[in-house]
Amino acid sequence: MLRLIGIGLSIDMLPLGNLKKILSCDEIVVDSYTSIWFPSAYLLTSLLIQLGKTVVIAPRNYLEGGEVKNLIRRALDKEVCILVTGDPLIATTHSSIITEALVNNVEVEVVPAVSIFNVSISLSCLQVYRFGKIVTVVSPKNGIVYEYPYDVIKMNRLQNLHTLLLLEIDVEKNYYMKPYEAIKILLDIQEKREENIISLKDIAIILGDVLSCRQKIWILTIEEILRMQYEFLYNKLYTIIIPSRKLHPVEEECLNLIRKGKMSYLCAISEEELKKIAQLIYNQ
Amino acid sequence: MLRLIGIGLSIDMLPLGNLKKILSCDEIVVDSYTSIWFPSAYLLTSLLIQLGKTVVIAPRNYLEGGEVKNLIRRALDKEVCILVTGDPLIATTHSSIITEALVNNVEVEVVPAVSIFNVSISLSCLQVYRFGKIVTVVSPKNGIVYEYPYDVIKMNRLQNLHTLLLLEIDVEKNYYMKPYEAIKILLDIQEKREENIISLKDIAIILGDVLSCRQKIWILTIEEILRMQYEFLYNKLYTIIIPSRKLHPVEEECLNLIRKGKMSYLCAISEEELKKIAQLIYNQ
Repeated sequence: MLRLIGIGLSIDMLPLGNLKKILSCDEIVVDSYTSIWFPSAYLLTSLLIQLGKTVVIAPRNYLEGGEVKNLIRRALDKEVCILVTGDPLIATTHSSIITEALVNNVEVEVVPAVSIFNVSISLSCLQVYRFGKIVTVVSPKNGIVYEYPYDVIKMNRLQNLHTLLLLEIDVEKNYYMKPYEAIKILLDIQEKREENIISLKDIAIILGDVLSCRQKIWILTIEEILRMQYEFLYNKLYTIIIPSRKLHPVEEECLNLIRKGKMSYLCAISEEELKKIAQLIYNQ
Repeated sequence: MLRLIGIGLSIDMLPLGNLKKILSCDEIVVDSYTSIWFPSAYLLTSLLIQLGKTVVIAPRNYLEGGEVKNLIRRALDKEVCILVTGDPLIATTHSSIITEALVNNVEVEVVPAVSIFNVSISLSCLQVYRFGKIVTVVSPKNGIVYEYPYDVIKMNRLQNLHTLLLLEIDVEKNYYMKPYEAIKILLDIQEKREENIISLKDIAIILGDVLSCRQKIWILTIEEILRMQYEFLYNKLYTIIIPSRKLHPVEEECLNLIRKGKMSYLCAISEEELKKIAQLIYNQ
């Protein structure tokens, strides 16, 4: 069997059932390139190795290349697991691995966990029913600007909907787009088109390293985001929410809570605790 | 401090950090009316009581009424927790409790977990980027039909986007809308309007009791759903995805995997295991 197991965004968000399933695998591949896991995927890997597991930390070419065919072949008579940060199949694309497994008559299990998708919306205080399409902002490649994210914001704003923006990351190149880079890209497209969908006075919600010990949430104007380069040095992964210009009174009140810094997130599980829990489950 | 702690959709999806936080609370209120938790919220409650915790299973009038003011007052100098199925603030509305806490100078922590929102999308094999607005289908109240869900599907289809439909539930009245009821409501609205947004030959994805031991996923035509009353007796909670008529080849291939029944979900954590893990964390 091939299991695609979500590990959430951090040690705290690892679901009990997912941990048990990881421990039942004969061979474990950790997807190390679609995102990062807090405090570190290496911590989880080293713990699994200590428990006697066979673990491979896979770069992109492993899971997108020929290596994956061998992996699927081994899944015919072994428990092979691929660990994915967040919720597998949400915002990462391992569907091709699944279909490859099907062609080879391998049973597949998809094991969800929290995703940046639901967590960003939940922590923003905005109502899930008022979100439109989500989109990822990517930096220009070979001089070509990918304008689609701007179109999505425009489409959502015209329908009075919020937009969740994921920002490009490239773990292997150690590139994590900063909020001001994303905003700059969007404003450049807007300027070229001579439109006014996003104004400098509009607010945006920025979420940094959610569900880690460093989690931080800001409510800023577009103008402030462009100026804030120092503040964004501390966190690594960001998402931005461009809210609809019309907020529901409950949303407005809840955003005030974030503004006043009354909304915390405290990380809880230590490496030592994870180890003890894993040992307990493993020795059952 | 007031903590709103997500408990996911099932025992398997309880995140490690959330369990630790629950165990640190002086007083625990379990929201028992916004959804159900598998195998049962009573199992979790009884376990917490065995560990010496003060637990209240709250009906709707508790968390929406005057009782909540007292609760917030106690959160000024105690750790008060509200446990919510899924991800708090996603698809449930406890924002008013948060703003009430703010007015009273109580610190708030929102602790996410998996939500029906990300899980339905992840398990459907469809791409998150191709989803539009989500919406809940509710049954007519006093003869008044709430037509908005139909409008959302129409708007999404015209933009080539998928729609996630949550179905009305009323835990206190033991009412859980069945897929054929939801489809019937939508087709009646369509008929009245003399439109043709949803045809009987269109497919829909139905997810039943996701992340429980009974999880089941169907890919059916609208016509088949209307006829299937027996098949929907077994599960309690359903969501429906009305996909865009144009599917991406990868989505199409992945749906075939579900059709062929090659995609499983196996529940893993027993009550006994949860108890042992909780004791281990609690006794640290």
